[in-house]
Amino acid sequence: MNDTELKELVQKMTIEEKADQMSQVVSSFIHKDSGQDKITGPFASFEVAAENMSGSGSVLGAAGAVDLRSIQKAYLERNRLGIPLLFMADVIHGYKTVFPVPLALGCSWDLEAAEESAHIAAKEAAAAGLHVTFSPMVDLVRDPRWGRVVESTGEDPYLNGKFARAFVRGYQGEDLAGNTSKIAACVKHFAAYGAPEGGRDYNTVDMSERQLREYYLPAYKAALDEGAEMVMTAFNTVDGIPATSNKRLMRDLLRGELGFDGVLISDWGAVMEAIPHGVAADNREAALKSLKAGVDIEMMTPCYIQHLKNLVEENKVSEKLLDEAVLRILKLKNKLGLFENPYRGADKELEQKVILSEEHRQAARATAAKSCVLLKNEDVLPLSTEQKVALIGPFAESRDLMGPWSIFGSEDDVVSVKTGIASKKGVRLTVETGSHIKSVTPEQIEKAVKAAEQSDVIVLAVGEHSDMSGEAGSRTNIQLPHAQLKLVKELRKTGKPVVTLLFNGRPLDLHGVIEESDALLEVWYPGSEGGNAVADLLYGDRNPSGKLTMSFPHNVGQVPVYYNSFNTGRPKDELDPSDRYASKYLDAPNEAMFPFGFGLSYTSFDYSELHQSSDRLPGGESIDVSVEVTNSGATAGEETVQLYLRDLVGEVIRPVKELKGFRKIYLEPGETRKVVFEINEDDLKYHHSDLSYRADPGDFTVSVGPDSRNTEQLRFTYE
Amino acid sequence: MNDTELKELVQKMTIEEKADQMSQVVSSFIHKDSGQDKITGPFASFEVAAENMSGSGSVLGAAGAVDLRSIQKAYLERNRLGIPLLFMADVIHGYKTVFPVPLALGCSWDLEAAEESAHIAAKEAAAAGLHVTFSPMVDLVRDPRWGRVVESTGEDPYLNGKFARAFVRGYQGEDLAGNTSKIAACVKHFAAYGAPEGGRDYNTVDMSERQLREYYLPAYKAALDEGAEMVMTAFNTVDGIPATSNKRLMRDLLRGELGFDGVLISDWGAVMEAIPHGVAADNREAALKSLKAGVDIEMMTPCYIQHLKNLVEENKVSEKLLDEAVLRILKLKNKLGLFENPYRGADKELEQKVILSEEHRQAARATAAKSCVLLKNEDVLPLSTEQKVALIGPFAESRDLMGPWSIFGSEDDVVSVKTGIASKKGVRLTVETGSHIKSVTPEQIEKAVKAAEQSDVIVLAVGEHSDMSGEAGSRTNIQLPHAQLKLVKELRKTGKPVVTLLFNGRPLDLHGVIEESDALLEVWYPGSEGGNAVADLLYGDRNPSGKLTMSFPHNVGQVPVYYNSFNTGRPKDELDPSDRYASKYLDAPNEAMFPFGFGLSYTSFDYSELHQSSDRLPGGESIDVSVEVTNSGATAGEETVQLYLRDLVGEVIRPVKELKGFRKIYLEPGETRKVVFEINEDDLKYHHSDLSYRADPGDFTVSVGPDSRNTEQLRFTYE
Repeated sequence: MNDTELKELVQKMTIEEKADQMSQVVSSFIHKDSGQDKITGPFASFEVAAENMSGSGSVLGAAGAVDLRSIQKAYLERNRLGIPLLFMADVIHGYKTVFPVPLALGCSWDLEAAEESAHIAAKEAAAAGLHVTFSPMVDLVRDPRWGRVVESTGEDPYLNGKFARAFVRGYQGEDLAGNTSKIAACVKHFAAYGAPEGGRDYNTVDMSERQLREYYLPAYKAALDEGAEMVMTAFNTVDGIPATSNKRLMRDLLRGELGFDGVLISDWGAVMEAIPHGVAADNREAALKSLKAGVDIEMMTPCYIQHLKNLVEENKVSEKLLDEAVLRILKLKNKLGLFENPYRGADKELEQKVILSEEHRQAARATAAKSCVLLKNEDVLPLSTEQKVALIGPFAESRDLMGPWSIFGSEDDVVSVKTGIASKKGVRLTVETGSHIKSVTPEQIEKAVKAAEQSDVIVLAVGEHSDMSGEAGSRTNIQLPHAQLKLVKELRKTGKPVVTLLFNGRPLDLHGVIEESDALLEVWYPGSEGGNAVADLLYGDRNPSGKLTMSFPHNVGQVPVYYNSFNTGRPKDELDPSDRYASKYLDAPNEAMFPFGFGLSYTSFDYSELHQSSDRLPGGESIDVSVEVTNSGATAGEETVQLYLRDLVGEVIRPVKELKGFRKIYLEPGETRKVVFEINEDDLKYHHSDLSYRADPGDFTVSVGPDSRNTEQLRFTYE
Repeated sequence: MNDTELKELVQKMTIEEKADQMSQVVSSFIHKDSGQDKITGPFASFEVAAENMSGSGSVLGAAGAVDLRSIQKAYLERNRLGIPLLFMADVIHGYKTVFPVPLALGCSWDLEAAEESAHIAAKEAAAAGLHVTFSPMVDLVRDPRWGRVVESTGEDPYLNGKFARAFVRGYQGEDLAGNTSKIAACVKHFAAYGAPEGGRDYNTVDMSERQLREYYLPAYKAALDEGAEMVMTAFNTVDGIPATSNKRLMRDLLRGELGFDGVLISDWGAVMEAIPHGVAADNREAALKSLKAGVDIEMMTPCYIQHLKNLVEENKVSEKLLDEAVLRILKLKNKLGLFENPYRGADKELEQKVILSEEHRQAARATAAKSCVLLKNEDVLPLSTEQKVALIGPFAESRDLMGPWSIFGSEDDVVSVKTGIASKKGVRLTVETGSHIKSVTPEQIEKAVKAAEQSDVIVLAVGEHSDMSGEAGSRTNIQLPHAQLKLVKELRKTGKPVVTLLFNGRPLDLHGVIEESDALLEVWYPGSEGGNAVADLLYGDRNPSGKLTMSFPHNVGQVPVYYNSFNTGRPKDELDPSDRYASKYLDAPNEAMFPFGFGLSYTSFDYSELHQSSDRLPGGESIDVSVEVTNSGATAGEETVQLYLRDLVGEVIRPVKELKGFRKIYLEPGETRKVVFEINEDDLKYHHSDLSYRADPGDFTVSVGPDSRNTEQLRFTYE
């Protein structure tokens, strides 16, 4: 259809039909036997009977070619105007072939791998009949207590923006209508969901507007610039008003200023949550506020269905607002080609062919390996198959390796660490659970110690159950559970080398683990091929190259710790160490235990010849900054070269370092490569106190190195 | 002098003389033998030789009638225009007679006692020659990691405002010129110093302007409304600009909007800290920014002295700005009567008479007792003198009971707990140190256990060394030091009843102490008369009546925890407990372990007959809310009856409870009193998203009770 036809279609619709389009439910509401009816969130007062929602214009959470074709067929048979359903779901880091969690993907610093992961997810999901995924989540995160840090690529606005674009490209491709193996992306959660107070999910967010614009908005904007078709609202408040009711945030900033004209959907139940938030007295006021804010689709609450009609009839709102919203929804359906082919990519045979295909599994395996971060290695990794291995820990045989938000993945399809290691030729392996996630028995310890004593090396697979992070997975204690710390301690006493594998969804306080380990590999939740990827790294079939994208604090009392922080007026490093009156803690460092950008390799990389083409950068021009990197070890490997800027004097305070470029390079042993970065005016811009975004003349430092802490620097003047 | 004469005086001054007035140093800069030269803070680049500062118009930190008279005399002899020096100092919670730390004073909920403490401090300080105290500190605090919470009265804007007024009244009285036993108050730290990120002192502050106005500004404003003569800048940034360089904050908001026309002084070194903050390239730019912001006096850095002259000469700034600043300073000197009597209250004989007088000590003792908060009491307190007491712990004999910022107090004048208890007639007492603050030996434990075993009851005096809180006293771990937790555990094993006295400067995570104690009395740093006050409470000579004004979290991972928080869109209490998707932690409660307003007594108080005069509150009118409180126990005691409001639907989110009234009442056993509160429109006002301050029609709840958690509620409608 063309735009004119779509507009005509809107004109034919009743208010009720418009409200239908603007509502989204799980499939059980519109199709009894869909078998998908898991309802989470606050539904005590869902007063609308299921049949009143049966006309809803979109469905979330259901998938599978056969099911979705049948739901669509039945729906179209009863839909007066023949407007097809839109199927959406949370395909967050893979559909059936599950990739590492996004925080791990971020640690790959590999935008192509990220794009490919989204491409594969789209291919599988589209064959299963889906049209839209509620991804990417691009919320900037600084607080490891918050469980949903696992869904973000980390603490840096620049890097998150790059990943946001890569994911959108991977899901959507160039041509949604023409390519039925692509799905629409929905960037979330607008805005600043990543900053809940106390790291407690859904909690209040408060920050200055300048901070919002400088750090939190860029990644959403990047996703929009890449063409993301949809945006999801956040659960939190922004400047005292829930995002989902926030006209200034949504209609003025998102639509007006950022120019977003796609479909804006509420998060699950968020329209009605205006009531507990305390900005709406009832469903009607909640509907009114979200409608005015520009929320096109209400997810899983009935405020629109109940009240749009009476709000229009009583002139509380113009029907024009509804028409605009419905047109945006119909445009998306049209863009996906649903009017011509309501079944689109849903194809049972294709589904069986692509899902968990060897090609997809290989990609998942390679990407999982790239996402692991080697945090410590005292000459113990890689292992040799000569060594007798005691694989111990609750994750030794676990298939809970997919992590949060992998709702379509099945543990049956997951390769465990045991299986991964056992597949390596010649390996001699004994396996002990050692402890449960949160409890341990003396017998478990005893058996584990015995196995350890009879081995050459201990591979210790410990971590958080996947339920311990993810949505509503906030923790005040970010250490490993006590039971596992005890296991670590007891195994350490055997004197055998300990290689720890850490499965988790957040930066942890590693005290009690890191000192007790000879090597520590942060493997996050590595996905369907997790066990193989980990085994590849353990045995040197692949070389670790991941680097942290979120700082690991020394302890939870330090939170938030992030690399792009401010110098303060009394910077510890610039004062005499004996001076009490510095900005520091009495009992812990200011800095992270492991900083942003940090990660080891089985080889070593030497940096030299840092050079800039000029120490003056006139406006409108650029300078080149180059560095030579040499693989000085005996193993081929990948290194992520990072470039940071600092504006030495700003109109407002400026971070001590800001990532403005990176390059992932592959080097054979002994090989040297020169890496060149271009710096121009755009890299120097920031939001001033009047919110203007521009660069100021003055001095800058440019730092290059293997991580955010360990850099060499030069200085130039922007004129 | 009159204003005209003062203005004429300004006209006679050279720019250098003006810069002198606008600079403050410690006395050693202007008077070699002052014996007061302790310099803290960042002074690596203090480039001006001492003699260039010898004309500075004010001095900080020195005290003592003889010294100050001699300094003043020498200064006046060489001052061309005969402008007297102004003597300022940190008299924070008492001069020589040290009262409890402000956080403890807050817990008294006794505004008269707070006023009296300031009155006594002023009397002693004025006799010692001081003119201004850098007090009250009224920063709202929510993060117990920050060491300076000890200097605040707590987390509530309403209560902090009441205390701010009480302190200002106590210091200044009605007539500064006529009453030489009064001193000028300097409210600090403007603004929002209480919200450093991560609880790390001097760290960045970021919040929305609405939050700043709604929660952080009211207490400063209250102090100004009460007539505080001076304001001190904060070290932190406010919306990206250091407060001390922040024109919008200082000249526009503080001077323009809040109408402050007194003297604005920088905190120690803060003018020059614009450089490490990164908003000024050098001292000259730092001077320019602070001058434009409206900072009248630069404390302890030389930017003004070095650069005001060249800034004026090069037309970077109008001399008019200097003249305005100098006039404000001269007006203050004049208001204090210094032109007529430059020695003012400095009087050696009076000093000896008033300092630590019996009257002052009795006031300190009574106030200290009111400031202690009984957090637990399982029928063990009060003690009887029949019981054999083992007094154990690092605070048993310690005189470190004055707490941070008691620089004029002497430990020689402090009554220890041992002395306090021993003074009770008939007491049988053995004393053991048990442990040091941060370390313990087996011998210490052994001796302590032995003493405990031979006693009827253990009084365990544990806590933080006073250096562990206060300025630059930030901690990431807010538990008692491990050594003391061990002592607690070992003593518990004796089976003897344990009464724990807690000496500390912040809310602590009490796990490991509270469960092991039969009674726990939070005594903070109780000041010079601490030991007597504590003994009075232990033996029932006084009845505990303090109530917390800052929440005690369960653990540091919960921080910030404060009672006037928001409901969120998924409030835990309104959802099924099995619902994962609530705003909560997996491993800790949302709520405080001990909430704001909480504190026990040796008697019990029953609340009944909660009544409101109407369930409708028309604009411009008021309603009365009353409750009857009965002392249902056998001991006379004081109860603080608290009234909280909640606006059920706001234009922005509103706290679940907000303190809007309290009444401290004394009840004999069996006595009942009716307490009546008036509620009017002003109590319902808040800052809207457009920053307007007004009340909205709608429903409110009013809750009354003994603390912020345990209340009964009614509902009314504001029309």
